[in-house]
Amino acid sequence: MRLAVLGAGAVGSSVAELAGEYGHSVVALADSTSAAVDPDGVDVEAALAEKHESGAVGDASVDDALAGEYDVLVEATPTTLGDAQPAYDHVRAAFERDRHVVLANKGPVAERYADVRALERESAGELRFEATVGGAMPVLSTVEDHGPDHVSGLRGVLNGTANFILSRMAAEGLDYEHVLAEAQDLGVAEADPSFDVEGTDTALKCVIVANVLAEGEREYTLDDADVDGIVGIAGSALELANDDGRTVRLVGEVVDGDIRVGPRILPQQSPLVVSGTENVVQLATSNAGLLNVSGRGAGGPETAVSIMTDIRRLE
Amino acid sequence: MRLAVLGAGAVGSSVAELAGEYGHSVVALADSTSAAVDPDGVDVEAALAEKHESGAVGDASVDDALAGEYDVLVEATPTTLGDAQPAYDHVRAAFERDRHVVLANKGPVAERYADVRALERESAGELRFEATVGGAMPVLSTVEDHGPDHVSGLRGVLNGTANFILSRMAAEGLDYEHVLAEAQDLGVAEADPSFDVEGTDTALKCVIVANVLAEGEREYTLDDADVDGIVGIAGSALELANDDGRTVRLVGEVVDGDIRVGPRILPQQSPLVVSGTENVVQLATSNAGLLNVSGRGAGGPETAVSIMTDIRRLE
Repeated sequence: MRLAVLGAGAVGSSVAELAGEYGHSVVALADSTSAAVDPDGVDVEAALAEKHESGAVGDASVDDALAGEYDVLVEATPTTLGDAQPAYDHVRAAFERDRHVVLANKGPVAERYADVRALERESAGELRFEATVGGAMPVLSTVEDHGPDHVSGLRGVLNGTANFILSRMAAEGLDYEHVLAEAQDLGVAEADPSFDVEGTDTALKCVIVANVLAEGEREYTLDDADVDGIVGIAGSALELANDDGRTVRLVGEVVDGDIRVGPRILPQQSPLVVSGTENVVQLATSNAGLLNVSGRGAGGPETAVSIMTDIRRLE
Repeated sequence: MRLAVLGAGAVGSSVAELAGEYGHSVVALADSTSAAVDPDGVDVEAALAEKHESGAVGDASVDDALAGEYDVLVEATPTTLGDAQPAYDHVRAAFERDRHVVLANKGPVAERYADVRALERESAGELRFEATVGGAMPVLSTVEDHGPDHVSGLRGVLNGTANFILSRMAAEGLDYEHVLAEAQDLGVAEADPSFDVEGTDTALKCVIVANVLAEGEREYTLDDADVDGIVGIAGSALELANDDGRTVRLVGEVVDGDIRVGPRILPQQSPLVVSGTENVVQLATSNAGLLNVSGRGAGGPETAVSIMTDIRRLE
């Protein structure tokens, strides 16, 4: 397939770099203000080097990228809330031209799900967004294979930064601020970690799953989620849990149409207890019990692979 | 889709019973010697009651079932080794009539993979067999989504009976014979448990995965697997492992084209350590690290659900 990749951060770069290995070509690569466009295939290495040097990936504009001859638009710009712009306009532009859309950006499906599905209905293009929930883990594709009406709910640990902090606090008996600073040094937490540690990122993923499970009967946005984070969580709480053979994880749940995110006390042996930046999702299926999937829930190449699996399903 | 279901044991019955819930109809249901065939939909409950009473599911023959107007043949007769008969002839009959084939029976893809793929190539029908590896767990579909060339290997606990025995021996300090008898009482182990405890069942699943990963470059059969079971395993070995924070599981592996099955000592915290009849699979992917999937690896409804996910991918 010919890909137009919007976003040249960790995920967008990885998509562009890995596309060839998965049998695709990159005909456009754009960041927020510039683009490299070539119907014969963009020289990805050169474009990324150019961005590194001059700050621009190429001489073309984002609009040029959107107007190019691609089969699939890969939307990997940073997630924005509310109107989900500019990603929403990118999605609209692609659907109006009957192209497929694959999202890494959570905004359009977490904040404007009905709008995006309406655009898709008017288009010959198809929408996929496995990469928005749990990086490389097959979550939405498993829901799709079972059928949303055969999955009654989801529980999961969906944020690697929060999980790293909690598992390290518990393992080493360190306090929140200390481990957060360490995570920032390691690049596991961002300079402004609020999106991760306040539970917003986990909540957005749950909102997306809730929208998929509701099959259009109801639309969810971040406002519908009941969200607690782990900011300033006491080391003593983790120690108490530990003494009792338990531990604490930041768990997101979609159950009976309710979305809840918060720290939960779990048995050490629970399938939901994964360590470090690992993620895990537990799907409750009708007729087949609980299915657990764990793996790397974030990262450039991991998320790019998830995008490749979406593209494969479009072929 | 209109299904012809061959096999009226736990899996075949569940497929027939659940078909309607997943939007399909059953136009034929057969056991080894008789069939109920109705183009307008077989009365599944009546056919299974009839089998219970008279030993025959209906007045028609298996050949009548194969000659009916179905879209998908579901092959759920008992797995046989070597020539994989009569399943192989059923598969051929369906492909010759350009119908799709979904297998629960491991024989055709473990023992005659190249033959079956050759039949498929000559047919407008497509072959799927998710249910042959790990019951409800999405194993082959995940390999398919990543592409076989992007999965370098698999390790897994793929037999619930063996896992039940090992986890119960370790948890209760009981010996092999005692736990096996208990498992037989509970219906977890069959009267003749050799297929499970000698590692054959695990090996067949690994052979199937090896065939998929090899993409026709090489064909594997059971003869290519290096297989050790858990027959008579000493309780003292489990105790020793336990004292060291470890435990023993029957692990199947496909690595670099080698298929090995045997008891392995694993850390208690390993993702491969699941309890009871639970199964787990770990896929090594290129670019996205290890993916773990766990869930119910056997059982009528669970395996039937896996067949439903295959049928959904045929639509």
